[in-house]
Amino acid sequence: MTERVEPRILKGFRDYLPELMSARERMLATVARVFQSFGFQPLATPALEYTEILLGKYGTEGDQLLYRFRDNGGRDVALRYDLTIPLARVMGQHGGQLPKPFRRYQIAPVWRADKPGRGRFREFVQCDVDIVGSDSLLADFECMQVGVAVLRGLGVKNFQIRVNDRRILDGLMRRLGISDSGVQTEVLRTMDKLPKIGWEAMTRELLTKAPLDSGQLTALKTFLETTDLTAISEVVDLSVAQPGIDALTQMLAWAETLGIDEHLAVDLSIARGLDYYTSTVYETFLTDLDGFGAVMSGGRYDGLLSLFSKQDQPAVGISLGVDRLLAGLIELGLVTGDAAPADVFVALMRPEDTGYSQKVAVTLREAGLRVQTRLGSSKKLGKQFSQADKLGIPVVVVAGEAEQAADEVTLKHMPTGEQLKIKTAEAAAQIKLWQTKV
Amino acid sequence: MTERVEPRILKGFRDYLPELMSARERMLATVARVFQSFGFQPLATPALEYTEILLGKYGTEGDQLLYRFRDNGGRDVALRYDLTIPLARVMGQHGGQLPKPFRRYQIAPVWRADKPGRGRFREFVQCDVDIVGSDSLLADFECMQVGVAVLRGLGVKNFQIRVNDRRILDGLMRRLGISDSGVQTEVLRTMDKLPKIGWEAMTRELLTKAPLDSGQLTALKTFLETTDLTAISEVVDLSVAQPGIDALTQMLAWAETLGIDEHLAVDLSIARGLDYYTSTVYETFLTDLDGFGAVMSGGRYDGLLSLFSKQDQPAVGISLGVDRLLAGLIELGLVTGDAAPADVFVALMRPEDTGYSQKVAVTLREAGLRVQTRLGSSKKLGKQFSQADKLGIPVVVVAGEAEQAADEVTLKHMPTGEQLKIKTAEAAAQIKLWQTKV
Repeated sequence: MTERVEPRILKGFRDYLPELMSARERMLATVARVFQSFGFQPLATPALEYTEILLGKYGTEGDQLLYRFRDNGGRDVALRYDLTIPLARVMGQHGGQLPKPFRRYQIAPVWRADKPGRGRFREFVQCDVDIVGSDSLLADFECMQVGVAVLRGLGVKNFQIRVNDRRILDGLMRRLGISDSGVQTEVLRTMDKLPKIGWEAMTRELLTKAPLDSGQLTALKTFLETTDLTAISEVVDLSVAQPGIDALTQMLAWAETLGIDEHLAVDLSIARGLDYYTSTVYETFLTDLDGFGAVMSGGRYDGLLSLFSKQDQPAVGISLGVDRLLAGLIELGLVTGDAAPADVFVALMRPEDTGYSQKVAVTLREAGLRVQTRLGSSKKLGKQFSQADKLGIPVVVVAGEAEQAADEVTLKHMPTGEQLKIKTAEAAAQIKLWQTKV
Repeated sequence: MTERVEPRILKGFRDYLPELMSARERMLATVARVFQSFGFQPLATPALEYTEILLGKYGTEGDQLLYRFRDNGGRDVALRYDLTIPLARVMGQHGGQLPKPFRRYQIAPVWRADKPGRGRFREFVQCDVDIVGSDSLLADFECMQVGVAVLRGLGVKNFQIRVNDRRILDGLMRRLGISDSGVQTEVLRTMDKLPKIGWEAMTRELLTKAPLDSGQLTALKTFLETTDLTAISEVVDLSVAQPGIDALTQMLAWAETLGIDEHLAVDLSIARGLDYYTSTVYETFLTDLDGFGAVMSGGRYDGLLSLFSKQDQPAVGISLGVDRLLAGLIELGLVTGDAAPADVFVALMRPEDTGYSQKVAVTLREAGLRVQTRLGSSKKLGKQFSQADKLGIPVVVVAGEAEQAADEVTLKHMPTGEQLKIKTAEAAAQIKLWQTKV
């Protein structure tokens, strides 16, 4: 074969070793269960798409972050950058076969050749729900409800979904007299950074990108400081902004009815970087982690699907960044690595006992226990106890000649040192009893 | 934004729409549960690796099937081709932090720029278990046990793991007098196709690749027709083959003890295409599907890890091809698409009832039911019944003004047409009762 190669991983990528990966898998299972509880259905799309499907959807910056190349057949292809554009493509190709409205979820990695940083990787898993084919505000509200249910399901108590409406921002632009769409985009993208970088840094960045005069800056500041929806009318052009104000008002009322209003707040600085949002936009913050950034974001993007299909369809969604949220949950102490790879360790002292001890392992697995067996016999039972202990496995089973003759096993409960002989058929019940006592 | 683009997918790739994807997710959950029941722990590695990590590990053919490109930073990278080499890399980098022996599983897509065909895609999900750090034959046997448990867990009754040992094949080569390792590889690769293409086609292909005389061909045929392990001694050089014969004999005995011998058979044509296997090799076939090809394969590869680490470690594993197996289960009628996206559909006739009906939906979800709600009110209740029926959702809930006043809901069971008013707090129990009757 080939020569020895230095084992190394690409910058911005990471391995998930078992302790962290176990926690991540449990987290993903909870997320999927919550998605399903709202009637969302799973969809899978390829990692690779034709580049033309993805290009131009994420702004100039996004285009440059694509992993783009020519495949062996000379096709211009790219790794998916998010799960929204692939959904839009699927709707264009298969929309006719799908229910309307269509609630879909997808949990899958995406790739961005971004500058790696604290908690920012070039490959990360997104969990998206989207509702396609409904322009009802209830669909927007449902996406936020899903967000609340996911975080509650993961044990998070203190979080806030900060919501805004692009139409209110349009009303602001009209009021500020900014009509150039390029300048609008720059102002919104920069505003969006306010929670992260603060007013001063934001203003500095803004002035390098958009020619705002002091009157415009003052009006912008007044706007951003507004938290009361009824006061917004004074700082925006209502002919454009009113539907957005009505939408936020209605959602806040629903949130109150459902008792989740503590998790929903209007934040007029939320704009979302992407061009395609058309009305509601929202970002979710863990309020116990200052400056941590959003863990879940989304909004309504009614125009996007017309890029791939003749009839346009309204759509709204929310996307959870698993790896960032996992990092947050660890910081909050809500997730701890689970070291134990199994519930039971079956020892093996003599090769002749392999058959019986394997049979015992099968019996315990059939009772729903996770069972690791000793590979290769060793006379040193004490060493095997240590092996189990080091792995964090709480119960060791010995199934040797004496035990086999009586159809029994010897069980040792590592945390207490308790040891007993028991009929094999009753072993699983005893082990489960110990489990309830830990 | 950009102009309308024809929605299309790359050749050899596919979307999984919800009906099939639901079945696939249930299947993957079963697979993961079985892996965990043997104490295997999850690992995740990146989709992209440095090309030098992958190159030369899969033979010349494999090298050409890599999705290989230069990333934005000019690095020579490739999409992973399997999950075994990334595991070997992880062992080289992080082996010290991991238990020994280390049982890991990984469920993830791999990419091969192969010619697409019936059931063969350029992106497909593999489910691998491997045991690193044990040279015990019990580890090999455990991988086969996992294979048996996975297929049984999925409801498959008729299947066979066909097993061989590379050392027996080495004994055959010695007997045939073939010492050139290139010719050996060609003979083994071609032999491996015997179950798929039959003796005649195999012989034809063999003669184009290796200069065998008629005596060698006859000896080869005698070898391949041998099914009794005790008769092998006559057709191979025992000085090389004996450990392999002993291993197979021992595993068959263990299988008998555990009552799984009907699923294990010696097949001397099994060689596995990859260079890195060193002793046991096995492939699993669904015996009710003739010519379907293997759904699960593996073997021992004791030399591979030395490519990435200074101390070599023995390793053995088995890999399940999800997408092919799913296709097989569908052909066998063991998997059917699950159309219903939810257990309950909550109707909505008037906008004013949104709050109450949403509250009802929350209550039902908290009771563990999957609940879709009507988005946007409609006075036409009959149409909403049809909508639920079309989606396959068996229960419709009406929570309007009259119901709200009495803290009740109206339930309609679509399959029977039964309809009743009930306290909201009792609705979930009634719906679950209906579920048990279907």
